[in-house]
Amino acid sequence: MTELNPELEGLTVAVLGGTGPQGRGLVRRWAAAGISTVIGSRDADRAAGVAAELAGATGGDVRGLDNADAAAAGDVVVVAVPYDGHADLLRSLVGVLAGKVVVDCVNPLGFDKQGGYALPVPDGSAAQEAAALLPDSVVVAAFHHVSAVILSDPEIDSVDTDVMVLGEGEHRDATDLVRALAEAIPGVRGVYAGRLRNAHQVEALTANLIAINRRYKAHAGLRVTDV
Amino acid sequence: MTELNPELEGLTVAVLGGTGPQGRGLVRRWAAAGISTVIGSRDADRAAGVAAELAGATGGDVRGLDNADAAAAGDVVVVAVPYDGHADLLRSLVGVLAGKVVVDCVNPLGFDKQGGYALPVPDGSAAQEAAALLPDSVVVAAFHHVSAVILSDPEIDSVDTDVMVLGEGEHRDATDLVRALAEAIPGVRGVYAGRLRNAHQVEALTANLIAINRRYKAHAGLRVTDV
Repeated sequence: MTELNPELEGLTVAVLGGTGPQGRGLVRRWAAAGISTVIGSRDADRAAGVAAELAGATGGDVRGLDNADAAAAGDVVVVAVPYDGHADLLRSLVGVLAGKVVVDCVNPLGFDKQGGYALPVPDGSAAQEAAALLPDSVVVAAFHHVSAVILSDPEIDSVDTDVMVLGEGEHRDATDLVRALAEAIPGVRGVYAGRLRNAHQVEALTANLIAINRRYKAHAGLRVTDV
Repeated sequence: MTELNPELEGLTVAVLGGTGPQGRGLVRRWAAAGISTVIGSRDADRAAGVAAELAGATGGDVRGLDNADAAAAGDVVVVAVPYDGHADLLRSLVGVLAGKVVVDCVNPLGFDKQGGYALPVPDGSAAQEAAALLPDSVVVAAFHHVSAVILSDPEIDSVDTDVMVLGEGEHRDATDLVRALAEAIPGVRGVYAGRLRNAHQVEALTANLIAINRRYKAHAGLRVTDV
């Protein structure tokens, strides 16, 4: 284990939808890095089961709770649920999430036999929808493109991708914190990539990565060059 | 000069809007690679002037014509005009472009004091707009993210970026040809990145690269990992 960034010491990160592939992969890496983590799920028992599995695999600190208790326990709350239940879940947690940094990594995608495609989102993007629903939280968008398969592969020590981190300019502390969370995953860099009004294309680009994966039999990620 | 891909031998590439920064940068690299190029512009004299300049700088084959004559001269026609004039230009060239591969690299962006942002496009993306306007052409989307500054910098031998190439699955020959055109630029890889219905986010992501450039004082590009 490498040294934990002092900014992340004592921080608890909750991942709502943490039993899904993306959430599980992130918790695995953060727990392995020495970050205190909480898995949230609709089903607290299922969360506890996955938490025990990941605690065992990483030797890290992982608890499992229902989504509301997980949201309450987290200093930073990552939203990794399917887009389908995104708005309803956030609407139910407005009070609990007030004053917290909420990291949205939801990709509103549809699928048909030609692959994935971006769904229209009335607010522009899942991240903007979160910001509209959570006026007293600081919403940051990140972790859209990290391959869940690679995050969860214990054979892969270093994850070859950058994480684009988006948030309003006046929330620099929050975007810097989320960049540090990205960089707690070995190999990953967190790169500030603009305001939430530019989140839609970052979310939707996941459909292109899926097309790349299909063509090249890969788990594609992205690196930003000249940075 | 490295060996030219045999697929590109005898091919003439026309760049409409070729006197703008993006078009000029692409022509410079292609001419230097030994590809026969034509710069198109609304103003044929201006095109001829830029062509002479780039022919001198590269020792390559560069002609300058008005956009319609350039479109007629090209086997592959790259559209590198501002989004503003995109639809009108293509509408005026429907017949000339019939049967040709048309490479759209237009980024429909707006700008305000907070930077760049994606403009809404009724057809979904500039590339889909081109495909709708040009039913007898094969439209491919590519070259959205290549920094014009880096392309035009004679000190930079190798351009550190991948080019995402989008087109319909049944147009594999065309997307492969455009990938080869990308790879004629030293350092660049052409990566197939999905169908035109997923072009919007690739075009719009240019706004994020602009935000990255602003934050990091960079000319950011993108590499696809695990491919």
